[in-house]
Amino acid sequence: MKKIIYGCAYYDEYMPYERIDKDIEMMKKAGINTVRIAESTWSTHQPKEDVFDFSSVIKVMDRMEEAGIDVIIGTPTYAIPYWLAEKYPDILADTDHGKNIYGARQLMDITDPDYLKASETIIRKLMEVTAHRKCVIGFQADNETKYYDAASDRIQKHFVQYLKEKFHDDLKAMNEAYGLAYWSNRLSDWDVFPDVRGSINGSLKAEFDRFRRSLVTQFLAWQADLIREYKRDDQFITHNFDFEWRGYSYGIQPQVNHFEASKAFTIAGCDIYHPSQDQLTGTEIAFCGDVTRSLKQDNYLVMETQAHGFPNWLPFDGQLKLQAFSHLASGANGVCYWHWHSIHNSAETYWRILGHDFEENRVYDEVMETGNLLKKYGPHLVNLKKKNHAAILVSNDALSSLNQFPVDLDSSFRPSFFYNDAVRWMYDAFYRLNIECDFITPETEDISGYRIIAVPALYVSDENTPKRLDAFVKDGGVLIASFKTAYADENTKVWPDRKPHILHRTFGMHYNDFTFPVNTGLKGKYCQDEQAETFMELLKPDTAEVLVRYDHPSWGKYAAVTANHYGKGYAMYIGSLIPQDLLMKLLEDSAMHADIELPAERFPVIIRKGTNDNGKKICYVLNYSSGPSSWRSPSFEAHDLLQEKTIAPDTEITLEPWSCLILEY
Amino acid sequence: MKKIIYGCAYYDEYMPYERIDKDIEMMKKAGINTVRIAESTWSTHQPKEDVFDFSSVIKVMDRMEEAGIDVIIGTPTYAIPYWLAEKYPDILADTDHGKNIYGARQLMDITDPDYLKASETIIRKLMEVTAHRKCVIGFQADNETKYYDAASDRIQKHFVQYLKEKFHDDLKAMNEAYGLAYWSNRLSDWDVFPDVRGSINGSLKAEFDRFRRSLVTQFLAWQADLIREYKRDDQFITHNFDFEWRGYSYGIQPQVNHFEASKAFTIAGCDIYHPSQDQLTGTEIAFCGDVTRSLKQDNYLVMETQAHGFPNWLPFDGQLKLQAFSHLASGANGVCYWHWHSIHNSAETYWRILGHDFEENRVYDEVMETGNLLKKYGPHLVNLKKKNHAAILVSNDALSSLNQFPVDLDSSFRPSFFYNDAVRWMYDAFYRLNIECDFITPETEDISGYRIIAVPALYVSDENTPKRLDAFVKDGGVLIASFKTAYADENTKVWPDRKPHILHRTFGMHYNDFTFPVNTGLKGKYCQDEQAETFMELLKPDTAEVLVRYDHPSWGKYAAVTANHYGKGYAMYIGSLIPQDLLMKLLEDSAMHADIELPAERFPVIIRKGTNDNGKKICYVLNYSSGPSSWRSPSFEAHDLLQEKTIAPDTEITLEPWSCLILEY
Amino acid sequence: MKKIIYGCAYYDEYMPYERIDKDIEMMKKAGINTVRIAESTWSTHQPKEDVFDFSSVIKVMDRMEEAGIDVIIGTPTYAIPYWLAEKYPDILADTDHGKNIYGARQLMDITDPDYLKASETIIRKLMEVTAHRKCVIGFQADNETKYYDAASDRIQKHFVQYLKEKFHDDLKAMNEAYGLAYWSNRLSDWDVFPDVRGSINGSLKAEFDRFRRSLVTQFLAWQADLIREYKRDDQFITHNFDFEWRGYSYGIQPQVNHFEASKAFTIAGCDIYHPSQDQLTGTEIAFCGDVTRSLKQDNYLVMETQAHGFPNWLPFDGQLKLQAFSHLASGANGVCYWHWHSIHNSAETYWRILGHDFEENRVYDEVMETGNLLKKYGPHLVNLKKKNHAAILVSNDALSSLNQFPVDLDSSFRPSFFYNDAVRWMYDAFYRLNIECDFITPETEDISGYRIIAVPALYVSDENTPKRLDAFVKDGGVLIASFKTAYADENTKVWPDRKPHILHRTFGMHYNDFTFPVNTGLKGKYCQDEQAETFMELLKPDTAEVLVRYDHPSWGKYAAVTANHYGKGYAMYIGSLIPQDLLMKLLEDSAMHADIELPAERFPVIIRKGTNDNGKKICYVLNYSSGPSSWRSPSFEAHDLLQEKTIAPDTEITLEPWSCLILEY
Repeated sequence: MKKIIYGCAYYDEYMPYERIDKDIEMMKKAGINTVRIAESTWSTHQPKEDVFDFSSVIKVMDRMEEAGIDVIIGTPTYAIPYWLAEKYPDILADTDHGKNIYGARQLMDITDPDYLKASETIIRKLMEVTAHRKCVIGFQADNETKYYDAASDRIQKHFVQYLKEKFHDDLKAMNEAYGLAYWSNRLSDWDVFPDVRGSINGSLKAEFDRFRRSLVTQFLAWQADLIREYKRDDQFITHNFDFEWRGYSYGIQPQVNHFEASKAFTIAGCDIYHPSQDQLTGTEIAFCGDVTRSLKQDNYLVMETQAHGFPNWLPFDGQLKLQAFSHLASGANGVCYWHWHSIHNSAETYWRILGHDFEENRVYDEVMETGNLLKKYGPHLVNLKKKNHAAILVSNDALSSLNQFPVDLDSSFRPSFFYNDAVRWMYDAFYRLNIECDFITPETEDISGYRIIAVPALYVSDENTPKRLDAFVKDGGVLIASFKTAYADENTKVWPDRKPHILHRTFGMHYNDFTFPVNTGLKGKYCQDEQAETFMELLKPDTAEVLVRYDHPSWGKYAAVTANHYGKGYAMYIGSLIPQDLLMKLLEDSAMHADIELPAERFPVIIRKGTNDNGKKICYVLNYSSGPSSWRSPSFEAHDLLQEKTIAPDTEITLEPWSCLILEY
Repeated sequence: MKKIIYGCAYYDEYMPYERIDKDIEMMKKAGINTVRIAESTWSTHQPKEDVFDFSSVIKVMDRMEEAGIDVIIGTPTYAIPYWLAEKYPDILADTDHGKNIYGARQLMDITDPDYLKASETIIRKLMEVTAHRKCVIGFQADNETKYYDAASDRIQKHFVQYLKEKFHDDLKAMNEAYGLAYWSNRLSDWDVFPDVRGSINGSLKAEFDRFRRSLVTQFLAWQADLIREYKRDDQFITHNFDFEWRGYSYGIQPQVNHFEASKAFTIAGCDIYHPSQDQLTGTEIAFCGDVTRSLKQDNYLVMETQAHGFPNWLPFDGQLKLQAFSHLASGANGVCYWHWHSIHNSAETYWRILGHDFEENRVYDEVMETGNLLKKYGPHLVNLKKKNHAAILVSNDALSSLNQFPVDLDSSFRPSFFYNDAVRWMYDAFYRLNIECDFITPETEDISGYRIIAVPALYVSDENTPKRLDAFVKDGGVLIASFKTAYADENTKVWPDRKPHILHRTFGMHYNDFTFPVNTGLKGKYCQDEQAETFMELLKPDTAEVLVRYDHPSWGKYAAVTANHYGKGYAMYIGSLIPQDLLMKLLEDSAMHADIELPAERFPVIIRKGTNDNGKKICYVLNYSSGPSSWRSPSFEAHDLLQEKTIAPDTEITLEPWSCLILEY
Repeated sequence: MKKIIYGCAYYDEYMPYERIDKDIEMMKKAGINTVRIAESTWSTHQPKEDVFDFSSVIKVMDRMEEAGIDVIIGTPTYAIPYWLAEKYPDILADTDHGKNIYGARQLMDITDPDYLKASETIIRKLMEVTAHRKCVIGFQADNETKYYDAASDRIQKHFVQYLKEKFHDDLKAMNEAYGLAYWSNRLSDWDVFPDVRGSINGSLKAEFDRFRRSLVTQFLAWQADLIREYKRDDQFITHNFDFEWRGYSYGIQPQVNHFEASKAFTIAGCDIYHPSQDQLTGTEIAFCGDVTRSLKQDNYLVMETQAHGFPNWLPFDGQLKLQAFSHLASGANGVCYWHWHSIHNSAETYWRILGHDFEENRVYDEVMETGNLLKKYGPHLVNLKKKNHAAILVSNDALSSLNQFPVDLDSSFRPSFFYNDAVRWMYDAFYRLNIECDFITPETEDISGYRIIAVPALYVSDENTPKRLDAFVKDGGVLIASFKTAYADENTKVWPDRKPHILHRTFGMHYNDFTFPVNTGLKGKYCQDEQAETFMELLKPDTAEVLVRYDHPSWGKYAAVTANHYGKGYAMYIGSLIPQDLLMKLLEDSAMHADIELPAERFPVIIRKGTNDNGKKICYVLNYSSGPSSWRSPSFEAHDLLQEKTIAPDTEITLEPWSCLILEY
């Protein structure tokens, strides 16, 4: 890319009156250089099965082209018109929770033949009017696609076919792999297969989720292929991936294997919504950015983020600008807001740059400030490349399987704990230490470039993964794994031998028992009267050193954290959800063993680095605090990009609340 | 009316053994002068489709007539017999939550033709045996009627017809008015209309609720017309309206437009259930009473209230009497308990004057005390007329529409906030200040008689309403409005211009942004370190004075409360849910501008006034406290009605806990 | 029995690889002498309708027989194979919550003819291969059977037939008994009967629950009869009854009348799961044991209990052994764990002696210690007989009926309170005082042997029960009853006279009113500033002495607890859920009046006694504490069985945390 995309979604279709000239004037003033259009407005472009009307698309392209604003075309397939649902009732998905009724977006079965046929038609028609346009720089296939819990008879028939292939028609093999003998679930005939929705078998249910993730991969590849038939070489294809949602973008997406699905695209894209105001920490911006950058190991686009969304997301002074630069600091080549103006009806009526009155406002003002900075300094910031030493190993399969067992990990007297809680617990500690990370999966081919690999709760994997991790340590790597790692095979069948499977040698310890901690202290190196939280394994060191031990009448003989020198490497195992401060100290210990030098700064001062197109180093210094923070400049002279001045070596600098400083050197 | 109705519901049908003579004896002793019968006992009066049996009705009328106790006849249509549901399955409503199954009351579709036919039959038969009876003083049509979330295909067909008429067959106009383009909900054919229950369109859903409220109005008018064919001129027709239920009568009823529906009746009626014991404040008695009095701007009947209901509603010593007089103090001409005796089976088995043992008890004792006082002093208290200077503007449409957007007003970290929370927040402050109010709606024709109009969260209205309010201020009125007023039009389409729509001139301020307050103080006139709560708009004064400002690093430049001298009047806008004490001070400020003189007393001493049939002033002094309260008598000599003595001017009087004093002068 | 059964469930069918030799070796080492097999593995033994395969059963019997380990055969009928559900769709129950879909256990309609036919086939086939085997010592019919909320049309038709018989075809009688007039539920035709699931009539619903409990009794008797056709005289038949589940075994089972259903068996059996770690009190072990011993007034089997289950149930050092001896101390002749090894797939994957690695572990180690003690000392402990002076009267009917009225006993501002809360409140106080109890029901024929009968919340019963209790007191017994006793008849129709019905004379008090206590103190004998909790009746003493009075402005004139000398006996009534310490003092007072001598010890030191086969007294001293407890030995010389030493009279002995001492004398 040549410049940072600074954009927003734009829906001429939702406007209460003719506005486009005024909107473009305000966009130009604010430095908005790109709009995404057409996504989700299918019923406007095809009001009836045989009527097409792209006049709003053409009008917007015409005017944007004139104004020098680029356009991204979204296919509108994630919200279907009612005439389609009415004519082909099977399009509305029959889900884990029953048959959908028409209304919201994302209610369809993405494998339904009639849906696919209608989608193909609208996509081709849309491509015909848009692909050749100069202003159109790229395409977004569908939006936030997932399998939407679809589980119709037809999908389940395909699933049985998939199982037959997986087990080479050997039903006995499946019965044994999944342990179907339990509660008389053993099957005797492939053609007499119960509805998976009633199953209590965690293996079968995890497999069904994996199968349904493959449907998403297929669907997106199919859309990308359609677009490819029309698009020019200079036009990109992307998708707007989203994350596990907990009122905001929280963790790995359960319904999509982002790593597989992103292969169909020329550039990765995602949306990132995050807490704001006093809760703004930048963690989600970094986490989602690091994941998305890792998908294609390249720059990516933030297709949607908030300017203002939920009422409690109205940014404090400085926050909107800080957020935008934080996206770039993770390697984003574009930041797009959802969306230009708040709509006046329906739902989601309070998401916007411009409010209902279309007046300039405090959000618009800060967009304008940011847009004009990007216009000026963007060429220094675009195409930022990173070479990280640390990686976090994540897995959709581990997520699905671990989340099948809430009853065992959870009980009435303590809060729920799920896979992404473990992922974020580890990631957040790296983030706060200013150790930048990539994300890898069990399928990542080359992991030799990393010095540290962190493995949160990898509950399932095939046998190859622990073997590779063992070899990684032997070869000199540093491995950090948490409780519940290497517990079950790829069929969610628990390994019937010593835990962690294979890796107990690597870690130099094993365990037989686990429980929930109650009044259980942590003692040892780095500890300061912390308490174990949520879950604890009772570790028995074999060759490992005990770093942290439990403090408890019955558990005092067991370790909580061990470290083992193994081959040329170092392997740390963390058997309990220890507090974040202690975890950070253990990560520092690991970083030391991995010869990674840490910045002196800690959260709330966040340091993110990379190299730009000119081979210069770009270093973002971000103050995620409502108060001033102090920061010491490097030991060499550096250029403050936004202030356009030189910073002397080793200077103590006070960062304003919610502010950002960019060094180039 | 000639006397205060002091009554109860009486169900001979539920009696475990023959009791009527003993019951009448106990009623007479207690001063009970009226019973309501026949309501909800349809299966007894028509055990089969072709069998009618009014023997219990006739028996009760006979004996009551003999004893000189009046009778109100309720039509039994709010609970249907099973033979009816079984023969006409469509009578059981298909609702927002699925198809009802038989059992409870209020399960029917009140527009179903078979239900209407059967209702007509039982009503006519009942009228034939009751209307001519001397003891029968009036009729109650149905009971607590609502639309019960009915949403069958048939109802939805009528709704589409209603929409066609509303939009003069112009589908495009509807698409635009409701913003159906969003998420591809745009329609292309009136006859291909999706089930409203799936809709995510707030405009359409609010319209559907409004349509369904009109069905209730029609149904009640239809019943009243049937009754009118039979009744004598001296007999009244009423209804037992109920309120939004939060474990007790809380706010404006979402499913009924009480103002419209009450037009069919000769006198308004309602039920009022309220917290008791330490939670007894009298607020619900006053609120529901003020609403019901406002329906026909006349006296009303409390058709049901608790003697004892939920176990925690057993009244403390004095409370039952205090409650009864409080009803009269709001303008009630009757207070009826639900019900005479606690039933011995089924559900609701603990609601009563008499308990299961039928013995005299602490509740009965206080009913008796009250009944005998009413017999003696009732003629002074009946037909109390009020002339209030203050009015609160409420709207079912605003309620429906605001409640469509809980996701925007609410979020995981704070409690829900709905329309009635805003209504009660304002009303309760007036109540505690002893400023008596009427209720008005956007349809109220003449508002010129008021000095203050208070407008809580009037989220939607047609354009005429803000124009009338603007004129009201210009002409010298005092207007107080809260956040979220004048935000959207009658189709729940947000006005695409400056907020509050039209009224920003009246208030001399506008705003572009809003958020949830966190650690946000309030500073300014009347403030004492209060915090903003729940919701806040960032007000920008144009011509207005700032009364209260936010105290916060980013919001400190905005106002929370403004006041504007405009025309001959005064307009105060309250942009946040400020604490009640501060709100009360602002209402005092407004009252001063409106030349309303406030009593010196505040809650827990409540003062309510009016004029009786003899043109004398009646003043109730109610002590809503578990401790004594002191009260200073007027500056003139007044007559203590219940003590039958004269109170000297300016005397300091100690009110006993939960006691009541009535002055006549 | 000749020895204590110390066993576990064993599922060869769930093994991830061939293990039986190693398992038997480990069992022998640990003193496990019995395994339960075949329960719940129907699909393995009958993979298709016409294919039977008992090879795993035969293999296990062969190897266990060789090893000298006994076998209990469970019929596998509580989890059905899918081919059965698929061929006969009606087998999957249509329940109170809708139609089941296949997956979990206990989804079937136990009255379905096809289910019964298929069950008969698999039971007969299983009996044919197992009944004659030497190692097989007994049978378990089905597992944790309940009616599973089944409510199909077919079941409801039977229910109507049952009602017709109950009311001798007199529909009017039923209408009156159940108060169906309320809300127009009166019926006019037996054949036009509404779905009970929609009913709001508490009487009808309680009757339906009672009817459904009778279906369980019938089903278990039918299975037992089938088994009886095959079994030898030396083989027992039992069942694994379970209790009301609140995350553990809590109270009387709502869905089964254990007293009726156990008549079909030769020995009573149950499962007992209980809190562990810091929450371990032994109360559930004692409660469930006392109930199960009372079923046949004889020794019983604990068919399942936890070794380790939920993560928070990992036992502290000493707890597993303490638990095992506590079961024996209640009269158990067997303790079996669920189950030998944790399964590797599906659900319930963390319940076990051996973990997933099959290694020896801290749980196994303590099983081994216990097993070897039982091998040595079991003959002294088996067949322990008790003669208790106290009994607690419980009733499934009271449970069903009281739980119909949560709305009345409950409200938004306080926690739910149900029947079993009252039962456990009373039982736990007896337990902590070391007064051992039996359980009796209204159907128990002879109650004359008891000195104290305690009656928690006996909301319903026929008239005979209060009459018998009255006679019991007249004859010298001590009666203690709580609030809500003798309130309604067997049809859940509240008695229309003075409360408690009949017993108000026995107790010498009555009451008319009740409420929830708020800031309501308790004053009087034994009190120390306690507060009333949850519920309170306002008692009016007639001839009784007031033991405890309320302290409150309005309730201060009423009593909370009264005691009455009546005939030769003593009757105490407790009108409120008073705190446990005060209740314990009142029970001491009652015990004194009943001439029951209490041990000096209180919880956490628990004393349980009985007589063994040799006529010797066995006394268990159990320390349910994480600290040491001191205990004074008897005034005579006694033998410490496990330490094999003599304890001198009146010796102060320190009990280790979570330890157990057994005296023989």
